[in-house]
Amino acid sequence: MLHAEVKSDILRDLVDIVGTIVDEVKFNLSEDGINLRAVDPAHVAMVDVTLSKSAFEKYEADETELGINLNKIEQFLKLSSAGEIVKLDHVEDENRLVLEVDNITQKMPLLDTAGMTDPTVPQLDLPISLTVEGRHLLKGVKASQNISDHIALTAGPDGFEIFSEEDEDMVRLNLPKDMLNEINANEEAKSLFALDYFSSMIKSVSSDTPIKIDLGSDYPVVLEFKFADGNGDVKFLLAPRIESA
Amino acid sequence: MLHAEVKSDILRDLVDIVGTIVDEVKFNLSEDGINLRAVDPAHVAMVDVTLSKSAFEKYEADETELGINLNKIEQFLKLSSAGEIVKLDHVEDENRLVLEVDNITQKMPLLDTAGMTDPTVPQLDLPISLTVEGRHLLKGVKASQNISDHIALTAGPDGFEIFSEEDEDMVRLNLPKDMLNEINANEEAKSLFALDYFSSMIKSVSSDTPIKIDLGSDYPVVLEFKFADGNGDVKFLLAPRIESA
Amino acid sequence: MLHAEVKSDILRDLVDIVGTIVDEVKFNLSEDGINLRAVDPAHVAMVDVTLSKSAFEKYEADETELGINLNKIEQFLKLSSAGEIVKLDHVEDENRLVLEVDNITQKMPLLDTAGMTDPTVPQLDLPISLTVEGRHLLKGVKASQNISDHIALTAGPDGFEIFSEEDEDMVRLNLPKDMLNEINANEEAKSLFALDYFSSMIKSVSSDTPIKIDLGSDYPVVLEFKFADGNGDVKFLLAPRIESA
Repeated sequence: MLHAEVKSDILRDLVDIVGTIVDEVKFNLSEDGINLRAVDPAHVAMVDVTLSKSAFEKYEADETELGINLNKIEQFLKLSSAGEIVKLDHVEDENRLVLEVDNITQKMPLLDTAGMTDPTVPQLDLPISLTVEGRHLLKGVKASQNISDHIALTAGPDGFEIFSEEDEDMVRLNLPKDMLNEINANEEAKSLFALDYFSSMIKSVSSDTPIKIDLGSDYPVVLEFKFADGNGDVKFLLAPRIESA
Repeated sequence: MLHAEVKSDILRDLVDIVGTIVDEVKFNLSEDGINLRAVDPAHVAMVDVTLSKSAFEKYEADETELGINLNKIEQFLKLSSAGEIVKLDHVEDENRLVLEVDNITQKMPLLDTAGMTDPTVPQLDLPISLTVEGRHLLKGVKASQNISDHIALTAGPDGFEIFSEEDEDMVRLNLPKDMLNEINANEEAKSLFALDYFSSMIKSVSSDTPIKIDLGSDYPVVLEFKFADGNGDVKFLLAPRIESA
Repeated sequence: MLHAEVKSDILRDLVDIVGTIVDEVKFNLSEDGINLRAVDPAHVAMVDVTLSKSAFEKYEADETELGINLNKIEQFLKLSSAGEIVKLDHVEDENRLVLEVDNITQKMPLLDTAGMTDPTVPQLDLPISLTVEGRHLLKGVKASQNISDHIALTAGPDGFEIFSEEDEDMVRLNLPKDMLNEINANEEAKSLFALDYFSSMIKSVSSDTPIKIDLGSDYPVVLEFKFADGNGDVKFLLAPRIESA
């Protein structure tokens, strides 16, 4: 069962975030809100998003799984403007999700959730944790795109660096300690990542969103940030790309 | 003979409207204004546009037919801004149309009008007639594009609906009586149309333009609206697409 | 040796101007500023640009040649906004150019300048010289693009015309004497040019930039204008396209 009303832009953010990893996903509904978890087809990146009941104008649901094609929701949301309220209803006997905004009603069939797994972001004990504003990550990614298809994240007691090189070309965005919101680092760490994945993961953040980054050496990176006025929690995990010797 | 001056944006609207149906068309000039009529190459849609003498800053013409390539006029109009006055002259001994705006002069050869017919929108006695603002049709078309390549228009005593479905996906824009400017309907009617044609026909209307729609069941639809501050009259006819059983 | 600081938009203008002719170019450094000269691969157009020391916030250089890929500079500049200061340093022992803006550092290898020539715009004694604002050239080029792939420039005691024709289509932008900043012409002259080259050469000028044009009959045209608040000098030469009889 699902009867919910939510601002169009909150639903759009949810779809944008999870849509960077998969097109089809299982919405895990409970009384307290919605949770989505997914691994990309190449098993390189993982996302875990929770949108709490408090993000909604109205929310009523019981323990249910709905298989949803995110592209269809994305298309539907283009019919609405930012402040408008979207209604979501699960019509059980039709096995369809019904979306309404203004005087438009859209119905879409639900997907079979049998093959959809429930991955859990593993608990990693990473040596470095820091928080940085979105605009820095966005700029570092933009700079790296000129140089290479991978990106290196390095951090240590003095600060954080985004780095990319290819042959003799190199670019570096240097963020000393005082340009970060926070950093806890007693050692140096460096990991290399596929730039297209990293870039997708942060493309929905706004320039002033604080992003928590947990980093190790040749370990996955964990990115965490909030959306929906703090009522939504996002956790991304991205596997490292091991440098060839 | 033609010596005329008209605001750039009025000429642009004329070209946009007729350009949805054909690229080459006959301008039928008379003392009272210009009339253009055309059927698309697939004989699915028809347009009949009249731009009265009163739409022009200056207008002098006698009974003449000018064969014109609308793309060339469209390109020329990109050299002007909305308020600017465009001069049109028929240079008979060169068999060319001369356009002027600001300090630019463009000459284009006239087309042979021998093969250009003068279709007349047939008088159809359709059971339902309603008037709706452009923004509703534009939104209904946008919604339908997510779902299918055809669009259903249904109307009855209670109101008007734009509807599209494909497999188990469905979208509906519902316009109850009070969201319409006017409706005269004593029965229900429904017809199906090719979405790309319908979409083209309304793409030049602005969101607050009232559009009159005459509708039957599995009959052509007739759309009528005004442009050029009420000095231009447009009539479109679109053949229905018969639903396969 | 090079240690320089310059506003991002000045460097961008320099790169845009020379980038219309070549992708790789030799920066000829001296105590007084930077000079770049290049001929396009088809030997149809030539550029000679000087950016004086006074265009820079800081400038220190000795007689040096740096081989530079302009695309890499262009990409780098997209990371900066108009007012920001870009630092340029030649790191001699690495044979690399280092660019810095805000907290971003980019290094790029220098190119071998052995094969890069130093063309000189020839001194031509052209009969007509006139000065016109950028917006007129930009509009004339836009009008001509609708008609043909070449453009004719004609001038005489009465004024200047940009002209294009193909079969029976023709467009003309007429600039009588009083719409020009200046004209010195005792005779008529007309030359024809490839539109894509001419269009590229003026695409970086702003609408109020005065452009000096030296013109003859079936002779190359010379365009001269300033950038960087008058601290940069641009000279373009474009070979004529001879009309087939």
